[in-house]
Amino acid sequence: MPKPEKHVFICMQSRAAFHPRPSCSAKAGEVAEEFYAQLEKRKLFDKVAVSTSSCFGPCMAGPSVLVYPEGVMYGKVKKEDVAEIFDQHLQGEQPVERLVMSKMLWG
Amino acid sequence: MPKPEKHVFICMQSRAAFHPRPSCSAKAGEVAEEFYAQLEKRKLFDKVAVSTSSCFGPCMAGPSVLVYPEGVMYGKVKKEDVAEIFDQHLQGEQPVERLVMSKMLWG
Repeated sequence: MPKPEKHVFICMQSRAAFHPRPSCSAKAGEVAEEFYAQLEKRKLFDKVAVSTSSCFGPCMAGPSVLVYPEGVMYGKVKKEDVAEIFDQHLQGEQPVERLVMSKMLWG
Repeated sequence: MPKPEKHVFICMQSRAAFHPRPSCSAKAGEVAEEFYAQLEKRKLFDKVAVSTSSCFGPCMAGPSVLVYPEGVMYGKVKKEDVAEIFDQHLQGEQPVERLVMSKMLWG
């Protein structure tokens, strides 16, 4: 893998059903699948890396998606948002503001 | 979690024993434990985040540890190396050159 220009980390933390904090993994599987599908469709393997990750902390606002090197954190990401994140941010350098997590949680 | 100055991702990919690519997870568990132990010892929760991650690609040179925002990838990391990574890189801004992965694999 070449060093990517953008590296997307999707939280896939899973917790027991009775745990007081929710789990990104409950909804993040289809989000991760869509990131990989868009990566394949757009043939961006040399530019964008996609990984799954353990917990980032702001579980109440998940599924959480973190983009480096800029450290932009997205919250409540749905699979329908993924193409827009590619178009606007990963290929266009403009974070999708409506999905950027509150600075109270990551800032 | 505040946005960290440094975010460490430790590959914990696990594969079946007969898989042709080795698994970072075989040796990365104690590396991850040492990162969390050093984070606790040094009380750097506001500055350094540590997460575990899926595969980064250069499996033959694992365990792999990736530090953002700079995107420095370390290979063959041992638990004995972790304090040095904190001293020199995470707190000192100088990557530990002897552990930096070849540019053939990540560059």
